[in-house]
Amino acid sequence: MKYPLHLLKLIDSLKRLPGVGTKSAERFAFEMISWDRSKLIEVAHIIQTTPDQLKHCHECGSLTDATLCTLCKPGSSRDNTLCIVAMQRDVFAIEATHGYSGLYHVLGALLSPLENIGPDQIDIERLKRRIAERQIREVIIALDSTLEGDTTSLYLKEIFEPLKLNVSRLAFGLPMGSSFDYVDGGTLARALSARATY
Amino acid sequence: MKYPLHLLKLIDSLKRLPGVGTKSAERFAFEMISWDRSKLIEVAHIIQTTPDQLKHCHECGSLTDATLCTLCKPGSSRDNTLCIVAMQRDVFAIEATHGYSGLYHVLGALLSPLENIGPDQIDIERLKRRIAERQIREVIIALDSTLEGDTTSLYLKEIFEPLKLNVSRLAFGLPMGSSFDYVDGGTLARALSARATY
Repeated sequence: MKYPLHLLKLIDSLKRLPGVGTKSAERFAFEMISWDRSKLIEVAHIIQTTPDQLKHCHECGSLTDATLCTLCKPGSSRDNTLCIVAMQRDVFAIEATHGYSGLYHVLGALLSPLENIGPDQIDIERLKRRIAERQIREVIIALDSTLEGDTTSLYLKEIFEPLKLNVSRLAFGLPMGSSFDYVDGGTLARALSARATY
Repeated sequence: MKYPLHLLKLIDSLKRLPGVGTKSAERFAFEMISWDRSKLIEVAHIIQTTPDQLKHCHECGSLTDATLCTLCKPGSSRDNTLCIVAMQRDVFAIEATHGYSGLYHVLGALLSPLENIGPDQIDIERLKRRIAERQIREVIIALDSTLEGDTTSLYLKEIFEPLKLNVSRLAFGLPMGSSFDYVDGGTLARALSARATY
């Protein structure tokens, strides 16, 4: 016996979410069809309208309710350090560490020749302008440790070279709470070469 | 920095899905706000309309596109065995094993004095009527191995007593591929007492 056609459609829609396979999508779908009509209408409405309600900070590009985010708006007491991230969600992830008190810059993408994403797509001129206007002296590159992240980091490093900035990139090494059994060779090699006096 | 209000609403909505915590809901929400408008409208529409499009088989209560499901409709070659399940999704789970060729009966709930679910809610008369009409001789009780599942199974067993049916319940024991380390004491005790000649 196959699932009814409409249920299959709902399952397929839910499978588009990241990390959701058939099993999870089925569980979500069976839960959803048990919801009240009002709850379903509310959730459908929220899904459909949220992107229109969100604004991008005109300065740093992160998500906000207003034109400027709380970090960029005048009167904010953040340091003149700039943390460069790829995506808007990365800003929230770093903020959640409570280990950084500077400003952010969201690139919106990583350089990827395979996906045809070149320097134009990440608007380097806007980044340079911000560094000048905000009198930034220190830049932290907080990009993925993937091929695209490495390519973009290298590109940024070259761009920053003539600007005489203090540039750093996030450390590579063992994730916290990790066991050797689950750490790949590449990570281990990086952790070894970057070992610190203890 | 907090999430914008509308994004928070979307995250909260997604947290209503089973097994979805804050982290997953955040990932889902960030993925969704990156979707095209047309995709969002489509998904929202599917979520909102699916329950109205689904029908319940008039006989067994399982989900279907028509008035009767493919198993109950005339001409179906299923055995006169009845498998009693709690929820509609259980029918699909058992069908997926390809180990059963009889009919189903969806109770729609399990007896639960705590949640005020009594015999009335599971419509025992309809079940008895089906057993008579379909001339069922064998009944398989396929309910959860929880307090509610046990209570309901016991109740059904008493109901079936005067009907002279061949009644069985799903076996309890070690799940396939399970390691002793991860099996609880209750399961192990049941597996031991129900051990089979090997």
